[in-house]
Amino acid sequence: MWRIIPKEEKFFNMFQVQADHVVKSARALVEILENYSIETLDAKAAEIRTLEHEGDILTHDIIRKLNQTFVTPFDREDIYSLASRLDDVLDLMEGTVNRMKMYKIQKVTPELITIAKIVLQSSEEIARAMGKMHEISHIADHCIEINRLENEADLVTRQIIAHLFENSKDPIEIIKWKELYEYLELATDKCEDVANILEGIMLKNA
Amino acid sequence: MWRIIPKEEKFFNMFQVQADHVVKSARALVEILENYSIETLDAKAAEIRTLEHEGDILTHDIIRKLNQTFVTPFDREDIYSLASRLDDVLDLMEGTVNRMKMYKIQKVTPELITIAKIVLQSSEEIARAMGKMHEISHIADHCIEINRLENEADLVTRQIIAHLFENSKDPIEIIKWKELYEYLELATDKCEDVANILEGIMLKNA
Amino acid sequence: MWRIIPKEEKFFNMFQVQADHVVKSARALVEILENYSIETLDAKAAEIRTLEHEGDILTHDIIRKLNQTFVTPFDREDIYSLASRLDDVLDLMEGTVNRMKMYKIQKVTPELITIAKIVLQSSEEIARAMGKMHEISHIADHCIEINRLENEADLVTRQIIAHLFENSKDPIEIIKWKELYEYLELATDKCEDVANILEGIMLKNA
Repeated sequence: MWRIIPKEEKFFNMFQVQADHVVKSARALVEILENYSIETLDAKAAEIRTLEHEGDILTHDIIRKLNQTFVTPFDREDIYSLASRLDDVLDLMEGTVNRMKMYKIQKVTPELITIAKIVLQSSEEIARAMGKMHEISHIADHCIEINRLENEADLVTRQIIAHLFENSKDPIEIIKWKELYEYLELATDKCEDVANILEGIMLKNA
Repeated sequence: MWRIIPKEEKFFNMFQVQADHVVKSARALVEILENYSIETLDAKAAEIRTLEHEGDILTHDIIRKLNQTFVTPFDREDIYSLASRLDDVLDLMEGTVNRMKMYKIQKVTPELITIAKIVLQSSEEIARAMGKMHEISHIADHCIEINRLENEADLVTRQIIAHLFENSKDPIEIIKWKELYEYLELATDKCEDVANILEGIMLKNA
Repeated sequence: MWRIIPKEEKFFNMFQVQADHVVKSARALVEILENYSIETLDAKAAEIRTLEHEGDILTHDIIRKLNQTFVTPFDREDIYSLASRLDDVLDLMEGTVNRMKMYKIQKVTPELITIAKIVLQSSEEIARAMGKMHEISHIADHCIEINRLENEADLVTRQIIAHLFENSKDPIEIIKWKELYEYLELATDKCEDVANILEGIMLKNA
């Protein structure tokens, strides 16, 4: 029953673990926003901070392994970019809660929850794609969906900011909320980068 | 009369088509700004959106071809970066009209037209350089001019924003216009990136 | 007494010179801020502008040499990234003084000096690491310290901006200072990128 695990398995496995970190962090973020209170923000954000920290260590592990491995399952650069973009998604979610604390946000808008939910959907698609990296041709649908979600987030965020400028006359509120919306929307851009890298890997191995 | 078209020809040709998209979009942008009205913005912006969309498809085609080609005329990475930066220029021009709509801009400032005209000049230099990629040593002058235009845009934009802060006392107006100026100016940075990649290609093939 | 200087020596040497530019610029910036007056800003900023300009030429020289060298001491990409990120640090310091002029800053806050001093510390660590590139295993401690300084800058900047929003009720002041703080803090991010590239080189050569 002894089985040789080829090197690439370890990379696959590491990326799956990282995608799980991303999904867990996105779920924690949606939960924080849906039941928001400034008093509990710091305590609740601890999970997101832990996931970001664990993700950071894993990113370093992937890059260390990459630097020590002669033969990799995919192009070295793709592995490097994939690890970096997943790390970016984790950073952006932690950055969002950090900014909410920094701006002493008292009440969350439904608009921020809307964007967070798109980030969660994108994260789940990434995790599904990562689960199919052994049969890479099966990931195409997930990549298409991640691209669609990015377009949706882009459009929705522009409408949200347009409303913000129409309805708020307080420039300081505009500065804070514009940044929160744009910052969290960036996470869907990074998810799209992940999808594009996966598509590239798929094509190279077609 | 039968002629073998080497693979690289297709890359050259694709980049020329993409540079044409960029020039057409920059021309459309200048035209929109010079004859601006919020009522016609959406209809007029359609051309820029179409060019961005066609550019997007072409970028994907270039990268797909790159992933399926063993021998490329230049370094794979240079082709990838070149395609990505040209795509960025198209995105930034579309993003500018999107932001004008988002901010319900009623009247365009001459300052925004000034920046748009520098973007147009840079785009035209890129198209000229792309037309000479078979004899890559001839592109140096265009690259120098693109670098000069980026410096000019940088300086001009700083002066424009300095005036904005001096002359406007409305913070919400400042937020909107500062972003529009800076955002469009970014297009000249991406043009400079294109020039630098072309220069690198030139040196490697010297 | 005749000695062959291998090619890599020239790269080592160029990076050391560039790191010196960075340290000198950071020192000049701290000096400008500690003895600030809007009247002398332009004259005093000349040194930072000169260092940025010399750094620009050196960056081009490194990339030119890279494009003409078949065998490099490290991966080509690492050399390219290292040159680009050091160039970014110089750009960000020049950009900071440019923005102070643009915003007609009359009086510097102690908070901006705090961030500038962290940038200076990071720069000095980079210079120390660069001095040990022949024995690359010795640079680890410097890289760890640069990462620590980036975390510190991140946390400090968030506290500074939180205070800015609490204590200032003038949105235009908030826009100016928020940008200055965040912009200069970016320099520590680029220093961290430098450290990460150096760590990667170290691992590949372990």
